[in-house]
Amino acid sequence: MEGDNQLSLKHRLHKIIFEADTPSGKAFDIILILSIVVSVLVVMLDSVSSYRAAYGDWLYRIEWVFTILFTVEYILRILTVEKARGYIFSFYGIVDLLSFLPTYLSLLIPGSQFFLVIRVLRVLRIFRVLKFTQYILEIDQLREALASSRRKIIVFIYTVVTITVIVGSLMFVIEGAENGFTSIPRGIYWAIVTLTTVGYGDISPQTNLGQLVSAIIMIMGYGIIAIPTGIFTAELSRKRWSKQTTEVCPHCSKEGHDADAEYCKYCGGRLNPE
Amino acid sequence: MEGDNQLSLKHRLHKIIFEADTPSGKAFDIILILSIVVSVLVVMLDSVSSYRAAYGDWLYRIEWVFTILFTVEYILRILTVEKARGYIFSFYGIVDLLSFLPTYLSLLIPGSQFFLVIRVLRVLRIFRVLKFTQYILEIDQLREALASSRRKIIVFIYTVVTITVIVGSLMFVIEGAENGFTSIPRGIYWAIVTLTTVGYGDISPQTNLGQLVSAIIMIMGYGIIAIPTGIFTAELSRKRWSKQTTEVCPHCSKEGHDADAEYCKYCGGRLNPE
Amino acid sequence: MEGDNQLSLKHRLHKIIFEADTPSGKAFDIILILSIVVSVLVVMLDSVSSYRAAYGDWLYRIEWVFTILFTVEYILRILTVEKARGYIFSFYGIVDLLSFLPTYLSLLIPGSQFFLVIRVLRVLRIFRVLKFTQYILEIDQLREALASSRRKIIVFIYTVVTITVIVGSLMFVIEGAENGFTSIPRGIYWAIVTLTTVGYGDISPQTNLGQLVSAIIMIMGYGIIAIPTGIFTAELSRKRWSKQTTEVCPHCSKEGHDADAEYCKYCGGRLNPE
Amino acid sequence: MEGDNQLSLKHRLHKIIFEADTPSGKAFDIILILSIVVSVLVVMLDSVSSYRAAYGDWLYRIEWVFTILFTVEYILRILTVEKARGYIFSFYGIVDLLSFLPTYLSLLIPGSQFFLVIRVLRVLRIFRVLKFTQYILEIDQLREALASSRRKIIVFIYTVVTITVIVGSLMFVIEGAENGFTSIPRGIYWAIVTLTTVGYGDISPQTNLGQLVSAIIMIMGYGIIAIPTGIFTAELSRKRWSKQTTEVCPHCSKEGHDADAEYCKYCGGRLNPE
Repeated sequence: MEGDNQLSLKHRLHKIIFEADTPSGKAFDIILILSIVVSVLVVMLDSVSSYRAAYGDWLYRIEWVFTILFTVEYILRILTVEKARGYIFSFYGIVDLLSFLPTYLSLLIPGSQFFLVIRVLRVLRIFRVLKFTQYILEIDQLREALASSRRKIIVFIYTVVTITVIVGSLMFVIEGAENGFTSIPRGIYWAIVTLTTVGYGDISPQTNLGQLVSAIIMIMGYGIIAIPTGIFTAELSRKRWSKQTTEVCPHCSKEGHDADAEYCKYCGGRLNPE
Repeated sequence: MEGDNQLSLKHRLHKIIFEADTPSGKAFDIILILSIVVSVLVVMLDSVSSYRAAYGDWLYRIEWVFTILFTVEYILRILTVEKARGYIFSFYGIVDLLSFLPTYLSLLIPGSQFFLVIRVLRVLRIFRVLKFTQYILEIDQLREALASSRRKIIVFIYTVVTITVIVGSLMFVIEGAENGFTSIPRGIYWAIVTLTTVGYGDISPQTNLGQLVSAIIMIMGYGIIAIPTGIFTAELSRKRWSKQTTEVCPHCSKEGHDADAEYCKYCGGRLNPE
Repeated sequence: MEGDNQLSLKHRLHKIIFEADTPSGKAFDIILILSIVVSVLVVMLDSVSSYRAAYGDWLYRIEWVFTILFTVEYILRILTVEKARGYIFSFYGIVDLLSFLPTYLSLLIPGSQFFLVIRVLRVLRIFRVLKFTQYILEIDQLREALASSRRKIIVFIYTVVTITVIVGSLMFVIEGAENGFTSIPRGIYWAIVTLTTVGYGDISPQTNLGQLVSAIIMIMGYGIIAIPTGIFTAELSRKRWSKQTTEVCPHCSKEGHDADAEYCKYCGGRLNPE
Repeated sequence: MEGDNQLSLKHRLHKIIFEADTPSGKAFDIILILSIVVSVLVVMLDSVSSYRAAYGDWLYRIEWVFTILFTVEYILRILTVEKARGYIFSFYGIVDLLSFLPTYLSLLIPGSQFFLVIRVLRVLRIFRVLKFTQYILEIDQLREALASSRRKIIVFIYTVVTITVIVGSLMFVIEGAENGFTSIPRGIYWAIVTLTTVGYGDISPQTNLGQLVSAIIMIMGYGIIAIPTGIFTAELSRKRWSKQTTEVCPHCSKEGHDADAEYCKYCGGRLNPE
């Protein structure tokens, strides 16, 4: 009976902490998300020197309250989950741990408490509280499209890095240290700032030749942006398209038919008329 | 008779003020839009100190003339419309009210007259005067595509905010107050400026590690722009497509006909006239 | 005989000057384009004070040589073309006139010679010398896609202008003249610089509220770019698609059939099997 | 026997140096890529004055070791390849030569050793070591899409250059040398910085008219980016599509089959095995 009660308590806690489809589970998640948002704001305010001077003690105390709450929550999660190992090494498990660890660390290494903003990742749980399935579905679509274009994106990043390394070195030789291009790494930094059209202006070419090279790399960067966009858009369009093929062949049970298909393209059997 | 006349006057005024398909209604709308544009220019000029010094009195008087005109127009709209409540709380009703209220408010709170630029929203009415239906149709297409990609855009904005919060805090720790990163909120502001490729240069990383992190976030931001573009493009392409495929052939039950098709392209049977 | 000779001379000159499908016509066009490029470079060098000081006289003389050449060419074009009026008021006719007029004007109004760079538009003729039809075809495709998305682009520009007017005024009130937002027009200028992700940094928000508003408009601008890109891409994709429908119905001679159509969608007649 | 041995040695060396499908060939490529990365880092460190002051001698020696290694490798490549001419004048051959030549040149012209970063291009070989075929396939897809949109991109670049030349000259006349627009080329440089949304802020318009022109060119540049993106995306989408539709059904002669289709989706007949 005792053990049974224990089990049922563990089960009930699990339902509240991990799931969002019961009223208490939903309430827990909403309170959790609000706590996270408030605690992140506290960390931010603590970094502003004027607030720290005025309310430093209070912010410090609130910070510890949240840290202890999140620690307790973390321990409860481990205790109530079926496979503790699975949770601990999952993405959420690591984020949950990192979201209170820095406070303890800050006792040893001052300044590390600012890494508490990692908590903001916990807000990801919000998609469970909202219309869960629809969001997860769309996130998956985006993730799939990104995954499919993985190789093309690697090639693209390699291209960008190669261009910036070469142009950065070229500009180091052309402009030299007196115009802010003090080394090749700094030249590469400038090339990235320019190619991505960020353009801080902290380093900018002064010589005529340097400005000519800049102009070329700017137009290049302006055009190159078409590449990731094109890759991702084509992938996303294709994915959508293939979504229209929800039919299943009544003979071989295979999916993936076009909207205008009359016969199964795998086994040649007639598809059901729509 | 008196009441009938009254009614007919109300009806005629309604036609002139609210609709644009009669000559007087169109003339009214054109005069209204011109007045709006001129009055917005007056507000702008009033904000330029040199003009204010030279023509301040005149600008002030013109401003009051427009305000009284718009007030009269607003009252007429309420009086002539069928359901006054519906109009008052509609988008246009609120904009119409906000487009003259600040002048009265400026008597109490100086400076609030600059919010009169909200009038610029009234120019939206211009699409009624131009070839109305075509524009409204295309605006609806854009709005629909945006609405369909609503969830993906929320996920995208959440991702951007998360990245900027984490990177902003990281940079606050790396660069510190002496390089302009005086607090986490300021670090986040910098991260947004950088990720969106705006790059003012009012705050820019000075340390080597800071510049490395910047370079990574720049390339990330440069690539991430593919995501909203891809989402919106895929949605718009799909919308266009599906607009052409709503009909079903009454003979062979096939879909996929163009909007201008009269006969089924699969069996040659006549399609239902729309 | 004399008149005939005259006519034939006129005809031959027309072929050389206006067309590019004879060896002499092609040679004329190539020499013309080279002259244009050189003359534009001369105008540019003339604007650099160090070159002007050193070679001002020579640049001035070369400038006049080109001007006289282009004047003679313009007169020849008018004399040899069938319908002089049509040419004079065409796009090319106006550009040709504007490409030498400023030199004469500069005798009256110094500085106007710099408008000679309008000559660069004459280089458009280069597409005639290269594989003419292919380029013209693709330019037409781009132009058509732009024309079809005309209305959507107007709506987009209207939206951008409205946002910048409202945000610019808001920032003028928030930041004030002491932070560089000296007037509403300047605030709008800043808003455009920010929304388009240019980000000069000549004016940048200093207050916390101002930076918050900036952050919002930056993320907005970062996302809004998806709209023109989506519009144009969807239009271009659709255009390409409709290109696959090169078939002509043998019964009603109409075009525009899908690749998988078996029957004409206009008259129901059977299409030729491919 | 001797000659046979020689041949077999040459053959074996060729397999190791040029191919990556044997264990030793793969090992060679991995060591090579690591050496390239390390040697590029050495060149970069050598450009940083603080590192050069501290470890200049060591960096110089390491640099020479890599140079000699790459020289030996280059000679081996020429000796073992079937057609030496083909290799020497190939893209890789030229890059391989340029990746050690600057060290020798630096004995004559100091500073030229920084061009050694060209070595970074050699890392392209990495795609051979990774899952070769898949990457090459996707690189080819990107290259094909770029090649197909070649003409449209040329037209686009021509348009951008024309706009910047005209706007740059206009701004030179409007703003003048006192606001940083010292010459037309500098005005063009500014126009490119602005149109591509880089926006350094090293030159920025000060007059009202100049800021108005800037605002127009910014919105233009913000919209124009849609053009290359649209071109490339449409091309990439079409490419994907057409890749799935190369087969013709031998029974009903219909096209439009997916790459993985075994039976015709229109008549149910078996498709030819690839």
